[in-house]
Amino acid sequence: MQVYETPGAVRRASEGWRAEGLSVGLVPTMGALHEGHLSLVERAAAGCDRVVASVFVNPTQFGAGEDFERYPRDLKRDAGMLSAAGCDALFAPDVGAMYGAGGTDLLSGERTFVEVGRLGEVFEGAARPGHFRGVATVVAMLLLAARPHRAYFGEKDYQQLLVLKKMVRELHFGVEVVGCPIVREPDGLALSSRNAYLSSEEREAATALFRALETGRSLYRDGVRKTEEIEAAMMEVLRAGSLVRPDYAAVVDAESLAPLERLGESEARALVAATVGRTRLIDNAAL
Amino acid sequence: MQVYETPGAVRRASEGWRAEGLSVGLVPTMGALHEGHLSLVERAAAGCDRVVASVFVNPTQFGAGEDFERYPRDLKRDAGMLSAAGCDALFAPDVGAMYGAGGTDLLSGERTFVEVGRLGEVFEGAARPGHFRGVATVVAMLLLAARPHRAYFGEKDYQQLLVLKKMVRELHFGVEVVGCPIVREPDGLALSSRNAYLSSEEREAATALFRALETGRSLYRDGVRKTEEIEAAMMEVLRAGSLVRPDYAAVVDAESLAPLERLGESEARALVAATVGRTRLIDNAAL
Repeated sequence: MQVYETPGAVRRASEGWRAEGLSVGLVPTMGALHEGHLSLVERAAAGCDRVVASVFVNPTQFGAGEDFERYPRDLKRDAGMLSAAGCDALFAPDVGAMYGAGGTDLLSGERTFVEVGRLGEVFEGAARPGHFRGVATVVAMLLLAARPHRAYFGEKDYQQLLVLKKMVRELHFGVEVVGCPIVREPDGLALSSRNAYLSSEEREAATALFRALETGRSLYRDGVRKTEEIEAAMMEVLRAGSLVRPDYAAVVDAESLAPLERLGESEARALVAATVGRTRLIDNAAL
Repeated sequence: MQVYETPGAVRRASEGWRAEGLSVGLVPTMGALHEGHLSLVERAAAGCDRVVASVFVNPTQFGAGEDFERYPRDLKRDAGMLSAAGCDALFAPDVGAMYGAGGTDLLSGERTFVEVGRLGEVFEGAARPGHFRGVATVVAMLLLAARPHRAYFGEKDYQQLLVLKKMVRELHFGVEVVGCPIVREPDGLALSSRNAYLSSEEREAATALFRALETGRSLYRDGVRKTEEIEAAMMEVLRAGSLVRPDYAAVVDAESLAPLERLGESEARALVAATVGRTRLIDNAAL
C-alpha cells in the first residue's frame, strides 16, 4: 500500500489509475479505525478497481472545547488495518498540507470554504455550530485531491451523509456518494472511534441510544404514526440512564431532516444524540 | 464543435479526452463575446489539446438591481465565434441545469455554496455584496463539470482572478488558473461585454478609466512611491469627466489587494472603478 502525504501526490496516483480505465473509490476517515471503517473499505473494494483511504483528523469540524486535541491518533495501526483490508493507497496529509497558509479558522476571512446551508444547521449542526461547514470543506478537498469515482461514508453519521450528498449533487462533483450500513457491537452500540473514551460503566449505559431507536422502531411496527408519541418514548429510554444526558430524540423526513407530524407519507429516520459521561454519541435508524 | 447542456454531458466528453491522454482547457464566459474572450480561447488552444468554452450568465453573481435581466445574450453568435476560434466544445447550460432544486439564492439556506473570505469583500466585493460568492460557486461548478487541466480568465477582472486562484489553491482543485492580458480598444478602453450599454458620449467618457491608470503608471515611472499621491492623481482623472462617477482608484498589493503605503517592496496593482452613465466599469494595470 502506497502512502501519500500531499493532495498533489494522491491526485497523480488517482489520475494514473483513471487514465488506465480503472475506477477509484475513496474512504475518508479520521483514523482510529474500527470494523465500521473496514466495512467501508470492503464495500469500496467490491465496487471499485482501486481503493484510497484517507486518514486526517480535520480540525475545522471540531468546535472550541471539543476533543480535537485528544482524538485518538495511531497512523501506524490504521495503516496496517487498511493495508490488510485491501486498500491500494493511504492519503495521510498533515494539517499544513491540507489547509496551508489560509489556516484552519474558516470564519477568519483568510480562506475559502464550503457552506452547506440549513441542512447543516439542525441536530448535529445546532449542537456543534460550524461542524458541517468544516466537514463539507474537508470532504470537498479530499474529493478534489483523490479524484474518486465513488466515495464511501457510514450511515452512523447520517446527517453528514445527507449534507455530503447534497454538496456533491449541487456543486456537480460527479462523484457517487455511497452510504453504508451502521456496524454495531453485539449489544447494539454503534461502532464509533469515540467509544474508546467510555469507562466500563459508561460503555454499558451507552446502549441507551440503540435501545431508544429500537423502542421507536417497535412502536412504528405496532402501528403508531404520531411522531410526537414515538419521540417521547425514545426520549424516555435515553432519560432512564443516570449517566446519560439526552440531547435529542427525533423522527424526521429521511431526506430533508424536516419535522414530520405523522409517519407514512415519506421515508422517515429516527435520530438520537446524548452525552454519556463526557462523551457525545449519536445513532440513527430507518423507521 | 459539440454543444453540451448538462454538467454530466460535458464531463463525459472531458473525461474521454483525459483518458486518451489529452489536456483540456476551459474558458468560462458569460457570453456576449468579444476579442478579449477570443484571446483566452487562443491562449487555451495554444496550451491544451482540447478547448471547452462555457457560456452561462450566472444569476448568483448579480446583485438585486443589477443587469442580470438585460445582460446581452446571443448564444448563436457566441457559438459561431467560439467555433471559428477553434473551440472543441461549448458548454451552455441553463440555470436549472446548473442550480437545480436548491435554487439561485445562495443565502436562502437551501443550497451549498463556496465562500471566499475577505479577498472577496473589498473593492468589487464591497460595491457588489455577494458577487464573489456567486463567482466562486459557479466557477467551482464549471471546473467540476468540465474537469479541465487549465482554466483561462482575463486580467480585466483582476480581483476575480485572484479570488479564483485562491479558491483553486485552497480547495486543491488541481487546476492551473491562467490569467491573460487585458485586450483594449485603440483608445485604451478595456474590452467588456458591458461596453455595449454605453451611448457614444459615454463611450468617449469611459476612456477615463484607462487614462487614470496611465496617469498612475506615469507617476510611478517618474519615481513617485507614495500610493496616496498616485491614487489622488488617478481619482482626479476619473473626476474630470462629467459623465463619470468614480467609485475607487487604488494602488494595492498585487496578490492580497492589501493597502500599500509606499511602492517598491512588493508587486503593486492599480485598480479603478467608475460608473459611466448607468454602466459600472472596472479596469486595472500593473505598476
